[in-house]
Amino acid sequence: MTSGVEPFRAIGISRLAHALKAQGRSVIHMEFGQPSTGAPPAAIARAHAVLDAEAMGYWESAPLKDRIARLYADRYGVTVDPDGILLTCGASPALVLALSARFKPGERIAMARPGYVAYRNTVRALHMTAVEIDCGPDVRFQLTAAAIAALDPAPQGLIVASPANPTGTIIADQELAAIAEVCRGRGIAILSDEIYHGLSYVGPVPSMLAFDPQAAVINSFSKYWSMAGWRLGWLIVPPDQVAAARALIGNLFLTPPSLAQHAGLVAMDQHEVLEGHLDVYRRNRALLLEALPRMGLGRIAPPDGAFYVYADIGRFSDDSLAFCEALLRDTGVATAPGVDFDPVHGHRFMRFSFAVSTTEVQEALSRIEPWFAARTTP
Amino acid sequence: MTSGVEPFRAIGISRLAHALKAQGRSVIHMEFGQPSTGAPPAAIARAHAVLDAEAMGYWESAPLKDRIARLYADRYGVTVDPDGILLTCGASPALVLALSARFKPGERIAMARPGYVAYRNTVRALHMTAVEIDCGPDVRFQLTAAAIAALDPAPQGLIVASPANPTGTIIADQELAAIAEVCRGRGIAILSDEIYHGLSYVGPVPSMLAFDPQAAVINSFSKYWSMAGWRLGWLIVPPDQVAAARALIGNLFLTPPSLAQHAGLVAMDQHEVLEGHLDVYRRNRALLLEALPRMGLGRIAPPDGAFYVYADIGRFSDDSLAFCEALLRDTGVATAPGVDFDPVHGHRFMRFSFAVSTTEVQEALSRIEPWFAARTTP
Repeated sequence: MTSGVEPFRAIGISRLAHALKAQGRSVIHMEFGQPSTGAPPAAIARAHAVLDAEAMGYWESAPLKDRIARLYADRYGVTVDPDGILLTCGASPALVLALSARFKPGERIAMARPGYVAYRNTVRALHMTAVEIDCGPDVRFQLTAAAIAALDPAPQGLIVASPANPTGTIIADQELAAIAEVCRGRGIAILSDEIYHGLSYVGPVPSMLAFDPQAAVINSFSKYWSMAGWRLGWLIVPPDQVAAARALIGNLFLTPPSLAQHAGLVAMDQHEVLEGHLDVYRRNRALLLEALPRMGLGRIAPPDGAFYVYADIGRFSDDSLAFCEALLRDTGVATAPGVDFDPVHGHRFMRFSFAVSTTEVQEALSRIEPWFAARTTP
Repeated sequence: MTSGVEPFRAIGISRLAHALKAQGRSVIHMEFGQPSTGAPPAAIARAHAVLDAEAMGYWESAPLKDRIARLYADRYGVTVDPDGILLTCGASPALVLALSARFKPGERIAMARPGYVAYRNTVRALHMTAVEIDCGPDVRFQLTAAAIAALDPAPQGLIVASPANPTGTIIADQELAAIAEVCRGRGIAILSDEIYHGLSYVGPVPSMLAFDPQAAVINSFSKYWSMAGWRLGWLIVPPDQVAAARALIGNLFLTPPSLAQHAGLVAMDQHEVLEGHLDVYRRNRALLLEALPRMGLGRIAPPDGAFYVYADIGRFSDDSLAFCEALLRDTGVATAPGVDFDPVHGHRFMRFSFAVSTTEVQEALSRIEPWFAARTTP
């Protein structure tokens, strides 16, 4: 029996969006963080070939682990042992695995608030204690070394996410190094969720492994590689924890989908297609950043990466769930309420996901602009 | 940090088998419980069509949940609400979910010994206590109502598996009813793993839901539907636990692979293909049951269902892991050591999986028969 695990409110919004669509309404889905593009064509082609050639039993792809290790060399200049890479059904079970492998019930795991809802909920589901660090506009909604140094007592673990969900905000390199330094000094184990890596609008983002070789690192094919429904992710653990993590994954999860592993390996070389997606996100982001302030949504977390805009709606509403529902009913534009990400201040925030087409962003803006205008006191 | 989680020894055997193969040896894989057949052709065809038509984001198939509910009506005459069905990446996360949703750390979960290694390991990984019930040949290696009635104190939960892994043994209908009755009386929540349903050589097997509508039930497409590498399973929870289980799955796991859901829906109607697999298993089982006793493996758990033969090797060895390794090195036939399933008596048992082709079973027998003969004292 697990207490303190809240449902995603965005799922309710999405359900309403699909109900409206079923009634013939035109709906634009900006409520979930998933690309509307599919896997790269070469990955699809590989899947077709494998479907006809293999029986597909339980399988862990050695070439994929080698290729992921090479990603760390190419992208970050970091050496990763393929043996320390555990392939999972997406980032979610990787988080369960990382927490289970490293921490005990009752231990305290710190994280930024706002943050991805599953961090605090998974920590609680595993009977650990979530220590939420309030990260407001003054610290760009992100963790700082100072905030972690100030935690008393020191937590056993820290979840870092840069770029973050729901804000897209990136922690600067020096700050990331300082966070690693503070954690090393205080004996805090770092779990770095790097699922939005590859999606940066402000230059390269380092892996936490560059600053802390003992960090556990999570990533997934769901965002940059545009393969959310394929369910493929990974967890990297340091050498002394490989045996324990492998024993755990063999019992808790077994292997990820075989087809996704074959297709994912091919996807990792499709730079042109993937950078093309990034170009679309870059355009979408620019459109939103241009339009939202003049609609009264000028207080926005710095959207350095990912595909989100997290906006302060305090001048319009004190109930983000009701606000997002009304926006959806009136305009057909589905968004996520801030309460999913921040139980304290989220009632006055909303999140737009711009992982849709540019045409959809344009259409969404043309619908919501008059809606916001009607609610703006001059 | 999780203690008491042991690795699967069969994975080590399998690794050795692949190493031998890489050296040019002919290897027959009877160490894992996975069909060597692939998904039904119509399911593959559906996957091809979806690959070209959909972007595949996070998705939970409503038609698949309806179809699974219909399976319970058709196969068992039991009514299941599609809303109470949670789709998972195979049976493993379904077990994590079922245990997490229902039990707290420190609670006691009873199960048969021998049994599937992940039962006790997952229970321990979630910081619950595994209460192993010694089930020997006198009780056909299975749980009985009497054994559960005799547990003092009563555990909070019970994992039932019929047909079971590693034995294939099925609990008779009246005994299953009696187990449900005892559990009801003692306040023990039942978790029924029905992953080997559909694979019976002794007639229909009822779902635990026929005797206990409050039972949590796990199943998967990995065995009967021959789709292990597609990673698709499900958990059924009673109505009063749906909201909590949904909140939990949305945080711990999200959705299973989209393509597997599309293909699985089609697979569920491929009776002819699937019953064809069962015919192969039936022939393989007959071959083993005919040959093994004359090789000195006459003490066998009643292989009523699944695709396993669990045999007593006590007259040959007191170290099943070393025995299986030697058998593999000498003959190229990979099997699973009993220690994976029974830490107490498993050192003198081994498990053959006959989910391979009949030709492979014949070839395996022709290789191991002289090997066993050389070890038999007349």
